[in-house]
Order: sequence, then structure tokens, then C-alpha cells
Amino acid sequence: MPIDFFLNPRGIAVVGATPNPLKGGNAILKNIQLGFRGGVFPVNPKYGQINGLTCYPSVSAVPDPVDLAVVFVPAPLVPAAVEDCVKKGVRGVMIESGGFAEAGPEGALLQQSLADIAARTGIRLWGPNCMGLVDVVHRHIFSFMDPRAQEMNEFIPGTVSLVVQSGMLSAIFLMDIMSNATMGVSKVCSLGNKIDVNECDILEYFLDDPDTEVIGLYLESFSDGRRFLDLCRRSDKPIVVLKGGRSSQGAEAARSHTASLAGNQRIVAGALAQVGVTEACDFKQMMDLCRSLALAGPVPGGSDRVAILTLSGGAGIVATDFVAEQGLTMATLSVSTRRFLAEIFPEWMPATNPVDLWPAVERQIGKDVDVFLPSLEVLLDDPGVDAVFLHVFISNNRGRVNPSELAVRIRKAGKPVIAWIIGRRDDTYAFQREALAHGIPAFTEISRAAECLRAVLGERRRKGRRP
Amino acid sequence: MPIDFFLNPRGIAVVGATPNPLKGGNAILKNIQLGFRGGVFPVNPKYGQINGLTCYPSVSAVPDPVDLAVVFVPAPLVPAAVEDCVKKGVRGVMIESGGFAEAGPEGALLQQSLADIAARTGIRLWGPNCMGLVDVVHRHIFSFMDPRAQEMNEFIPGTVSLVVQSGMLSAIFLMDIMSNATMGVSKVCSLGNKIDVNECDILEYFLDDPDTEVIGLYLESFSDGRRFLDLCRRSDKPIVVLKGGRSSQGAEAARSHTASLAGNQRIVAGALAQVGVTEACDFKQMMDLCRSLALAGPVPGGSDRVAILTLSGGAGIVATDFVAEQGLTMATLSVSTRRFLAEIFPEWMPATNPVDLWPAVERQIGKDVDVFLPSLEVLLDDPGVDAVFLHVFISNNRGRVNPSELAVRIRKAGKPVIAWIIGRRDDTYAFQREALAHGIPAFTEISRAAECLRAVLGERRRKGRRP
Repeated sequence: MPIDFFLNPRGIAVVGATPNPLKGGNAILKNIQLGFRGGVFPVNPKYGQINGLTCYPSVSAVPDPVDLAVVFVPAPLVPAAVEDCVKKGVRGVMIESGGFAEAGPEGALLQQSLADIAARTGIRLWGPNCMGLVDVVHRHIFSFMDPRAQEMNEFIPGTVSLVVQSGMLSAIFLMDIMSNATMGVSKVCSLGNKIDVNECDILEYFLDDPDTEVIGLYLESFSDGRRFLDLCRRSDKPIVVLKGGRSSQGAEAARSHTASLAGNQRIVAGALAQVGVTEACDFKQMMDLCRSLALAGPVPGGSDRVAILTLSGGAGIVATDFVAEQGLTMATLSVSTRRFLAEIFPEWMPATNPVDLWPAVERQIGKDVDVFLPSLEVLLDDPGVDAVFLHVFISNNRGRVNPSELAVRIRKAGKPVIAWIIGRRDDTYAFQREALAHGIPAFTEISRAAECLRAVLGERRRKGRRP
Repeated sequence: MPIDFFLNPRGIAVVGATPNPLKGGNAILKNIQLGFRGGVFPVNPKYGQINGLTCYPSVSAVPDPVDLAVVFVPAPLVPAAVEDCVKKGVRGVMIESGGFAEAGPEGALLQQSLADIAARTGIRLWGPNCMGLVDVVHRHIFSFMDPRAQEMNEFIPGTVSLVVQSGMLSAIFLMDIMSNATMGVSKVCSLGNKIDVNECDILEYFLDDPDTEVIGLYLESFSDGRRFLDLCRRSDKPIVVLKGGRSSQGAEAARSHTASLAGNQRIVAGALAQVGVTEACDFKQMMDLCRSLALAGPVPGGSDRVAILTLSGGAGIVATDFVAEQGLTMATLSVSTRRFLAEIFPEWMPATNPVDLWPAVERQIGKDVDVFLPSLEVLLDDPGVDAVFLHVFISNNRGRVNPSELAVRIRKAGKPVIAWIIGRRDDTYAFQREALAHGIPAFTEISRAAECLRAVLGERRRKGRRP
């Protein structure tokens, strides 16, 4: 793949490496040392050795092969560092320093001089003003983020890969994702000012990447809209995009912030929908959508008929509102499903969707009969049901719902199930993590669960329509 | 106040008390013993003493005054217990047992017989099928909820009082609120089947309750729509209502669940808006709205012009979208505000709203100059700004934003500030709790912060219009 040397280089030089553990130049080096198995070469004329490695005065002084240089020196020193990389035959330079176009006209000139070097020499540039690459699966962390995250084993490998444009936001965004630990990640690419490598290059890479199953992009601007849409169109993998400026006021703010693609937000939204992209509207929602799509897996087909299984009539009604708001259909239960429910329900209770199991549970109290799992099975078996919206009430008093037991039924049926959970903070978080480990997305807000259900069902229908 | 004997009785009988710590009849007794300072009288013909207290064979056998009886015996035994309470001169009976109208036609007949006793004798009935009262401020917990919550000091006193209709949901809902510990509560009234005491009685009580500043109601049906609207109209306190059935599908589900007020959901929504009620659409959202309204305090007036203060251009744009979606206005900054920003901003950067401070922060790196707090002050000072939407990025590397320092500025200005926070799970939660203690609502989703901003500004404008 064209830009593979950025992600899997033979050797890496760290320009601006330093022994000071409080500085980014040390964090980058340490992160690389912790996971990367190829040659690592700190570059800094001031030192002979850093972190136990030989330090070189320049990249061109490194005797071994170097495919990638990660650069973290003040902006005015970057062009010379890149020229030195060209001299060495380095293929890609990841520039993580700030102080370029985002920092005013002088920085913009510096950035232009970098673009000129790339155009003249063919060397590929990533950044500047970014936090580089975090590849959790291969432990290639080419970034100044806090190395303790790696040391403390906070990274959970997963199948979602992300593109995050914003410089400032990406580091904190990533910490947020990692520390919430409800979602594994494959690769995160922070692109910053996109002087050369842009979201299309990374998207193209992700489409062929065996470690990536779902792609999420938080973009402030599109570098090449046409290419982006073409890539989305040919993608077998679900793609989620968060792009600010959906409202006219937001578009106005975007115009003053990035000056790119201003004014055509509605056209952009329409185009994204047409090529099957799921649009997100908020940061955590984007992650939740990606997570749900990753867990749903690649099964194609089906329609959008949802059955709700709850223990509270009121929660069932509220959930129905959100299912409707998302444009999904409330499933009409089959005769055999209704026959089953009529048997466990008290006589007076109609067997309708949403399915409120509480009266049935009450009827069985003291009898040690579980009605929950059998009801889930019956709903998953119903040919008129495409997905189940499951409500989990976590209390001390009653028997816990076990994610592994749910997972067995769900896998067998091959239909998406998304859970809403309510209960104590620690209990719900524990359930969320355990459910995730068993492939079931679980959320603490009904609205979010419904949004994810829509994305998953939409992706299935899209896959079902493909030749 | 007419129903004060339910909340502040002189003496309480617990009908169905038992020494078995696994049973609800024991939990009710224990909860009352832990906080209530009046006379407590367990009633159960099988025991002479429970939890160190003399146990009586019937309520009428209690020699001391009894204002309230909490009843937790099987449904068929409840009518006789209520008759016994009448005999004793008890003023109110809180029936927490299930097995009435929610459990089919036989239960409905039992419920009718209770209604008949109330009509004939004037005794007031609360419930059945409910979890009673949790008054955190006075420690009056007349409920079967797990006594460990009280023992472990999990209750945070606050000024939000709630009405929760659903039987099943209310216990777990309450655990969710309490254990999340980001919000204090004054009283929670779980009403169940509303045989007699209904949401209007409680709402009326809350309107005059000095411990209640904001009222949240989760209702599955309205018992007396006209009275409810009248009470809302005359309320000085913000009222938030969550009522399922906003969509036609949800209304249909509600029709089959409660059979009350079906079909008129749009009219209901319009009427609620007209009397100044904030409508919620989800459970946690209802709590977040209540919390924000409680923290905002009773300052009237102002318009809906919002300034966004952020460290990420991208987050600023996304926040602008949500401000617009909520129908709020993006503030136009005054000349003096723009002059201030121009001074701290790099030259090339326009001083517009959303205010992205990152380039200003970068300019000051190493200089130990804080631009964040002064910028917040200037925005709060701007006569064209009614509220500030603050973004807090919690990272290890940079100076932490201190909620107490924020609070000083916010209190001085008397304008609402709502924060969105992003960062590590533990850090954001700690910030959320600390911010709450200083009166600043903080949320992890931009969308939720914007929803709460709208509610707070709407409530202020409503107060500003009142005579």
C-alpha cells in the first residue's frame, strides 16, 4: 500500500529526541521503543545517547535504513530537518510540531516551504500540527501522547480505525476513548494541517487494511471531496463521518475556522448519505456509532423492523418514540411469537410490541422460571423482527442478566441487538464492558441506543443491496 | 399543606414488617428507623419484636399516635389493613405492594375496593404498586429500596424533587441517580397506580415546599390534565416533564399500556410548552435538565445569546451546530470584547464567536500567562452575551481548569455557564462532581450541554416575562 512506510517502517528516526521525560521529544521516543521492533534512532546534536540508544546529530548520519522520521522540533527548524531526511532517503516524515498554518501567516509560509520540498523531492509528509499515529494492534505508537497509557496497558485492541484532523482535540479525544475502555481501537491517525497526506490517503489505506473493519473520521475540512466520495462508494466497511457545520451558523463558524468547502454543507450531507456514510453529530456519538457497527459485523440484508423487550411499560413507550424518530419501524409480532407471549403473560395482557415482560416476571416470582431469555429467543426467531432493542435493569434484588447468555442467543440468530441499561453507575459500567466483550453494544441513554440501532440496520440494508 | 402527613407524620406503622433482612418489609422498617425521629411501629401478628422495636398485631393495637401507615403485605390482605388504619384514625396509607390494576382484572377489583374505602372514609391512599417516598434532606425514606444506600451515605441532598410514576422503573432510576452522584435530590415520590394521591397533589406540595427548587416528573399518564396545567402556570419553580408517546407509534404503545390521554400527545406538548414546562425526551436527559435548572438559580431576564469558549476550532463548530439546533442565538461580540480578544489573539486571527482560544494559549506557552479565565470574564461581562458555553479539555500536560476559580467569575456575573468536558473517564467524572459542588453543570456530550443551556435560558426568559 502506497503509504505503508508511515505505519510499518523499517527504521524510525526521532528528530528532536531528548532525555527530558517531561518533553514530547522524549515521549515520542519512549512510545516507539515500547512497541516498535525495528531500528529506532534518536536524532539530536546535543546528545550521544538517549534512553539507552545511540543518538545521532542528524538523520543523514544514521548508518542503518530509515523509512520514517518523526519530527518534533520548533517549526522554523523543520524545513532543514526534512531536507536532511531527503538526503538520507527517508520515505515519509511525520511532523508533529505546531507553529505552521494554524499559527498565522508566518507559519503558513513555513508550511508552504515544506509543501515545496515534498513537491520537488517526492518525500511524503504527514502533519504538521498533529499527534501522529497510534496503532494499538501492532503497538506502533508514533506520538507524543503520555507513554504511561502504553505502560499501564490502557490500549484495548479493536477493529475500529479513526482519522482525527484536529490537532488539539485528538490527544484528549483519544484519552477519552481509551480510558472509557468500552471500545477497542485498531489505528488512530491524527492528520493535523494535512500538508500532503490527507484523509483520502488514510481512508484508502484503511479500506485494504485487514485490521480495520469500521472507519470513523472526524474532519474539519475535506481535502479532496470527489476522491473521498469515490472511496466511500467502493467501501465494504462501514464509514462514520463527523463534520461540523451542519447548521448555517456552524457553517459560518467553519468558514472562519478552516475556509474550506464552506457553504455546501447540505450538498455534502446529501452526498455522504448517497455513498452510504453514516453521519455523526457529536464526538462520543461518533465513537458509539463506530462501536455498534463494529460489533454488528458484516451480515447483509434485512429490513428495519425493531422489537423492544423491556421490564417497564414506560421505558418501552419512550424507546418506541426514539425508534420512530430514527425512522425505524416497530415490528409486528408473528402469530407464533404472540402465542408464546400469551402463554407467559397474564391473561389480561395483550401481546404487543413493545414487549413489557414485567407482568410476566411478576407472575413467575418464586417459581424460579426465567422468562427473559426465552422471550429474547422468540423475538430473535420471529421472521418479522430484524433487530431487538433490549432493556436491561440492573438491580441488587433480582437475578442479573448475563451478557454471555445473551450473546449465545444473539450469535445464533445473527440479528443485531442493542441494549439500554439503567442501574448503579458501577454496575452499569461493568455490564457495558462485559457486554462489549461479548459483542453487545450497551448504552445508558435510550436515544443513543436508538441512533446506533439505526446505523447498524442501515448498514445491513446497504450491504444487502450491493451486488 | 394538605398531604403533609405523608411526608412528615407524627408516627408511622409498618404493616408487613418482618425480621428477615432479605424482604421488603424489613427494608422499609430499617429505612424508617435510620432517619425518621418520630414513633415507629412494626405491625405483624407473628412477631413480638422486630429490629429492637415492639411489634403490634394490628395498626389499631398501637397505643401511640399514628399518622401514616406504610403497607407491604400481599394485595388481597391490603383492604383489611386499610380498614384497620381507618379504625386507628391513621390519616394516610402508603401502599407499596403490587398486584393491583397493573396485574389484571382481579387486581383492578382489589384496587377499586381500596378506592371505595378512601371515598367512604376520607383516608388518603398513596400507591399502590409504588416505592413510596425518599426525602433525602430530612432522611425520611419510607421505601423498600436497599437500606445500604442510606447506611453507605449515598444520598446527596439537593433541591430537585421528583415524581416518578412507574413502579418498576423508579427504584432503579433512583439508584442510577444516586450512584452517579452528580446530582443532589430533595424528595422523590413514587406514585405507582395513583389510586388517590396523584401527581397534582405532589406538584402542589412541591410548589410550596421550601426544600424544592426544581420539579421533575416522569409520568405515564396525567390524572387531571387541567389541574396539572393550572399548577404549572402558577409555578415560580422550573418544571420538567418526561412523558412518553411523542411519536404516533409511542402514543399507540402508551394507549395499550395505560389507556389514558391517548391520541392527544401533540396537544399535550403544546399545552405544556404554553405553561412554561420544559419537556424532556429521555430519563437521564430529564435529570440533566433538572440539575442545570437547579444550578442556574432563580435569576430572571436576559435573552438567548450564547458565546462559546473553546480550545478547539472543531469543537466550537460542532457546538455552534447544537446551539443553532436548540433555537438559540450565537452572540455577536461587543467592540470591547473583540478588542480584548484581538490583544491576546495572534494578529491574523479574527475575534469571532465561537471563541477559539487555542492560538492565544499557544502564544503564551512558557510565559505563565492565563488567557482562559480573563477571556471567560470578558465574555460574561459583555452585555450582548446571555450565557457562556464553556469547553473544558482535561489533559495531563496542561494546567487544569479549576471549578472554584470558574465559579467565582460566574457568580459575579450572574449569567448561566454550562460546561462540556472531554478527557479521561476518571478525570472528567471528578471534574463533573467538583463543578457541581461549585454550581456549574458539566456534561460529557456537547448535545446534552446545549439542551440544558436552552432549558436554562428559556426558564430565565419566562421568569423575566412574569409580572
